[in-house]
Amino acid sequence: MKLLQIITTGGTIDKIYFDEKSDYKIGEPEISRILGDMNVGFRWQVQPLLRKDSLQLTEADRDLVRAAVEGSEARHFLITHGTDTMVETAQRLQGLDDRVIVLTGALNPARFIGSDAVFNIGCAVGAVQCLPTGVWIAMNGRVWDPNTVRKNRDANRFEPIGSG
Amino acid sequence: MKLLQIITTGGTIDKIYFDEKSDYKIGEPEISRILGDMNVGFRWQVQPLLRKDSLQLTEADRDLVRAAVEGSEARHFLITHGTDTMVETAQRLQGLDDRVIVLTGALNPARFIGSDAVFNIGCAVGAVQCLPTGVWIAMNGRVWDPNTVRKNRDANRFEPIGSG
Amino acid sequence: MKLLQIITTGGTIDKIYFDEKSDYKIGEPEISRILGDMNVGFRWQVQPLLRKDSLQLTEADRDLVRAAVEGSEARHFLITHGTDTMVETAQRLQGLDDRVIVLTGALNPARFIGSDAVFNIGCAVGAVQCLPTGVWIAMNGRVWDPNTVRKNRDANRFEPIGSG
Amino acid sequence: MKLLQIITTGGTIDKIYFDEKSDYKIGEPEISRILGDMNVGFRWQVQPLLRKDSLQLTEADRDLVRAAVEGSEARHFLITHGTDTMVETAQRLQGLDDRVIVLTGALNPARFIGSDAVFNIGCAVGAVQCLPTGVWIAMNGRVWDPNTVRKNRDANRFEPIGSG
Repeated sequence: MKLLQIITTGGTIDKIYFDEKSDYKIGEPEISRILGDMNVGFRWQVQPLLRKDSLQLTEADRDLVRAAVEGSEARHFLITHGTDTMVETAQRLQGLDDRVIVLTGALNPARFIGSDAVFNIGCAVGAVQCLPTGVWIAMNGRVWDPNTVRKNRDANRFEPIGSG
Repeated sequence: MKLLQIITTGGTIDKIYFDEKSDYKIGEPEISRILGDMNVGFRWQVQPLLRKDSLQLTEADRDLVRAAVEGSEARHFLITHGTDTMVETAQRLQGLDDRVIVLTGALNPARFIGSDAVFNIGCAVGAVQCLPTGVWIAMNGRVWDPNTVRKNRDANRFEPIGSG
Repeated sequence: MKLLQIITTGGTIDKIYFDEKSDYKIGEPEISRILGDMNVGFRWQVQPLLRKDSLQLTEADRDLVRAAVEGSEARHFLITHGTDTMVETAQRLQGLDDRVIVLTGALNPARFIGSDAVFNIGCAVGAVQCLPTGVWIAMNGRVWDPNTVRKNRDANRFEPIGSG
Repeated sequence: MKLLQIITTGGTIDKIYFDEKSDYKIGEPEISRILGDMNVGFRWQVQPLLRKDSLQLTEADRDLVRAAVEGSEARHFLITHGTDTMVETAQRLQGLDDRVIVLTGALNPARFIGSDAVFNIGCAVGAVQCLPTGVWIAMNGRVWDPNTVRKNRDANRFEPIGSG
């Protein structure tokens, strides 16, 4: 892996809390802070592309993500994304030659104690350098083919299609 | 201090995040978990009274808090409360004989990394056993007379009335 | 409280871990980082005086701490200190006119998840501005007269002399 | 991956701090707590085999680890290990048919704020399900062939042999 190209689109992973409005908002990409702290031994760069809840992503937004991948010289991609439509975006990215793309995110904001963000990013980083060409999702400690996984909103976890 | 009576009313300190709704909600009183973890050397009990943003507290709610203090045998009280109307509730509690009452809360949810919740609770605990009879606010590392302090929402901090 | 003068002497609160030696060492004063993060509403300054386990403090070291207090213009002092001989140092500081001195520390390094450091510092900060002239210890959520408290090493907590 | 068999051998990742001795000691396997918190979507079990600094591991210990792998029905293994001799143990495990073995650990104890433990375990979990048969090391965000990597103790990181 010569370079890990990271594209951020928003989602729960980057949510912060603003007391003055008693509300949350999507902040700076947490992945920059996390990979910096972890002192990783590979080259990486972050492209902050969108800052949205994934329920609010439009088809134009997904085209933008696809164009960002197509327009990059990199071979390895990590995309942080809201969980609710992560599968749709992953499917939209299929069919690009010679690229390994892993999407991940978090069920709890990275700034929460006990958040799954650091673990999920680790999982995505470990997977992206071992996987063949294609699009993949790293959530709940598993590396999923986006055609065989769904988010179970009631259980708040990713699971195989047809289970539960 | 024979017993620290803790009354919880909600507020940012107890906010947790529910991904399924992409929203924050007030959860269980965090102070129970925090004082348990800290292995404190005094007797305490928690009375979960309300679970509201302090902007939504009514006069009836404040009467309820006052009644809870009046109805208790304890002499020392720590009340967790949202920050936006903490001063109003503190003023509403004035005039009760022979009781030391400290209100505190947090500008960031206790479950956030870097939250001020643990520090503020520590500050309130340290103050309540050293203060004379009366009602006090422990926020931003200071112990305030509620008649001389306000929350500055823009700066997101408590400050003396007349400053800024 | 016009100014909180903070003197650091080392102890568990400031211990960090060095993998290269599989050992720990006393690092920079954690209280500077903590009070900075907490955005406190009073003036404070840190004087890093010693960097020792409190079991290794000599009488000359305690004289140095006393001289640092005597040499300062401040009226309010917070001293971070190892827990094993905190009581001895506190007693050594008694008899200084017109000063409020609170010693605190931690049973677990501040950089540990779940450490009591932030809570204890909060407790000391809350107490120091409410206490009369004298020397005090803030540990395990209580504000102690140093003549009536001891560290119980087996139970790893502070308790009244004569208990247990 | 039908089952992830986890073998723990000690190392920095599991170090905890005991104030009564002002010393660190290896505690319970942190990976059990971490994978439990992360709500992972695969079956796993933990076999606590050793509790040593990796500098203290003997050849007999490494034989024990190899025997534990050989004696298991599982195909996928994650081994937590001290960093100083992780490469030696990895090499000692080579040559076992039809097994994917990933070793990981941490440069800072898992119980430290900012530790690399959760990230490294995520990385190992992501890699183990994507890698072919063989023995691998997941450290510093990279998945290494143990014949091409070393720990640089001065820089406190893993790097390719021949670099630096």
